[in-house]
Amino acid sequence: MLNRRITLQARPTGIPGPEHFAQDETPAGVPEAGEVLVETMYISIDPAMRSWIAQSSGYTRGVEIGAVMRAGGIGRVLTSRAEGFAPGDLVQGRTGWQSHPILRGRETQKLDLSVGSLEDWMGPLGTSALTAYFGLRDIGALKPGETLLVSAAAGGVGQLAAQIGLIEACHVVGIAGGPDKCRFLNETLGLHGAIDYKAENDLTGAIRRECTDGVDVYFDNVGGPTLDAALANLRTDARVAMCGRISQTVAPEPYGIRNLGMTGGRRITLRNFLVFDYHDRYPEARAWLAARIREGRLRQRLHIVEGLENAPRALGMLFTGENTGKLIVKAAD
Amino acid sequence: MLNRRITLQARPTGIPGPEHFAQDETPAGVPEAGEVLVETMYISIDPAMRSWIAQSSGYTRGVEIGAVMRAGGIGRVLTSRAEGFAPGDLVQGRTGWQSHPILRGRETQKLDLSVGSLEDWMGPLGTSALTAYFGLRDIGALKPGETLLVSAAAGGVGQLAAQIGLIEACHVVGIAGGPDKCRFLNETLGLHGAIDYKAENDLTGAIRRECTDGVDVYFDNVGGPTLDAALANLRTDARVAMCGRISQTVAPEPYGIRNLGMTGGRRITLRNFLVFDYHDRYPEARAWLAARIREGRLRQRLHIVEGLENAPRALGMLFTGENTGKLIVKAAD
Repeated sequence: MLNRRITLQARPTGIPGPEHFAQDETPAGVPEAGEVLVETMYISIDPAMRSWIAQSSGYTRGVEIGAVMRAGGIGRVLTSRAEGFAPGDLVQGRTGWQSHPILRGRETQKLDLSVGSLEDWMGPLGTSALTAYFGLRDIGALKPGETLLVSAAAGGVGQLAAQIGLIEACHVVGIAGGPDKCRFLNETLGLHGAIDYKAENDLTGAIRRECTDGVDVYFDNVGGPTLDAALANLRTDARVAMCGRISQTVAPEPYGIRNLGMTGGRRITLRNFLVFDYHDRYPEARAWLAARIREGRLRQRLHIVEGLENAPRALGMLFTGENTGKLIVKAAD
Repeated sequence: MLNRRITLQARPTGIPGPEHFAQDETPAGVPEAGEVLVETMYISIDPAMRSWIAQSSGYTRGVEIGAVMRAGGIGRVLTSRAEGFAPGDLVQGRTGWQSHPILRGRETQKLDLSVGSLEDWMGPLGTSALTAYFGLRDIGALKPGETLLVSAAAGGVGQLAAQIGLIEACHVVGIAGGPDKCRFLNETLGLHGAIDYKAENDLTGAIRRECTDGVDVYFDNVGGPTLDAALANLRTDARVAMCGRISQTVAPEPYGIRNLGMTGGRRITLRNFLVFDYHDRYPEARAWLAARIREGRLRQRLHIVEGLENAPRALGMLFTGENTGKLIVKAAD
């Protein structure tokens, strides 16, 4: 059995793409004690991947040149030498960009299809949903009736953060690029307001227009000028959950945040966080998320790219804003 | 009896000075029920004053043109129509820049000279000490053994924050401008390190040199490029107490903070705060501070400018860095 692999060949300075990766086939591995051989079905494509392949990474050891690209995914167990796993089991783990990874059992989770479908596990029960959940609840401390502003609100994490805000009875305004994404926010998700940042000359004014009482919680997925515009609209006691900064990941120079000083005396809090720190509380979050999915109040639009070989191109789409929804690659049926 | 007054005449765009104020003498007022007539002895000169007279203020209603300049101070009661106050009592309150204010009893505190001397009440028991105390303990959540970095460390709030860090058994590094201030930090206060920002080409590197394990708590009094350099040196779980931003108060344009993104994944928290929010806990803080003063572990270098008429010039000194220590004006013996 052959393992199709995509390996890192060069570290991008801008938007990553096929030119930074190579593809090959090698014989699939044989699991040792405690391991399983898996056939990859879905692979998650996430902004954090850009950091993993950057020259210097803020928060995790990078992927080495020549190594299989790191990724989370879902697959089917083919051979098991790990207790609790049998052939045919559907599992979630760090598959990487390869068709037949060997995974360690203790780093792999069996999917409970009574909790959600396979697509739910890639979407509204997946890591981006957990990120939205802990970012809003623990970092944002969102309360009913507050005003929540979400950037990249049509993206993987953003659309879940926005929906959780609606479920929590907040006034929810999303920022996204282009009329299609804003229509999705207004009509499909039912947000109170959507701001097309590409169509606005004055983002600070646009936020003021949609958040007339100011912003209590800003869930930031983009950083840069959007963060600056949000800072200018914060209320007293506001919280900023600094989740991502995709606008800055591929910027040639970091943008300088100028409005931090405007918050003087408003008792604001900015915090960043890593979803992995909440690992012990994933079951709590998934129980809450699964209940909301069953009620029909939480969904995630998936943007599915077919074929493992297209993963490098898919990664680049995150940074050009081409994806509408949580981006995943389908590697096998 | 005449009341010498200094009133606001123009709102400064840069450094405030005598040209923005006028001086006159009017008959002293007569206290009504619940009020006291006071002779001002000491007036506190604080960076926040610049915001009170700015065009638009971040956090408090400004001083109106023609009104007596707002200020906290200490004085002696001359006439009392407020319960609990008698002629000769020493009190703390919002004296403003005037020799004979009328103060409301319920906004005025009698000084307990068994807790500290008159100078202690202007210094290490005063508002700047309370600011350092709550900023480090509540916002910074400083723990023994951690590394504390303080900017404007020779200033009113900074030197108290630095000493509280030493008392809490932290590695304490101060940033100040010029060799005199740095000698004060090293020799008088006994900090572990002092950085003369005027003598360093690379402030980020200088912080790294003095805080080899990184910074756990940054107590920021200046904002701007110093905040940026500190952000580049934060450890995982670091806290930034955004107390002041004196470098930015008179800057023609706000400085753009570029290194916020470098903290991605380090779970950092930036918070600003107002000492007045902690009003109910002032007794707790003053008891702690007074005990440390008695032990000889906490002091505050006062920079005393003689004469009420020199208050406008003294205010300007804050922004040129001319003061060494907590700046106060002596209005009467």
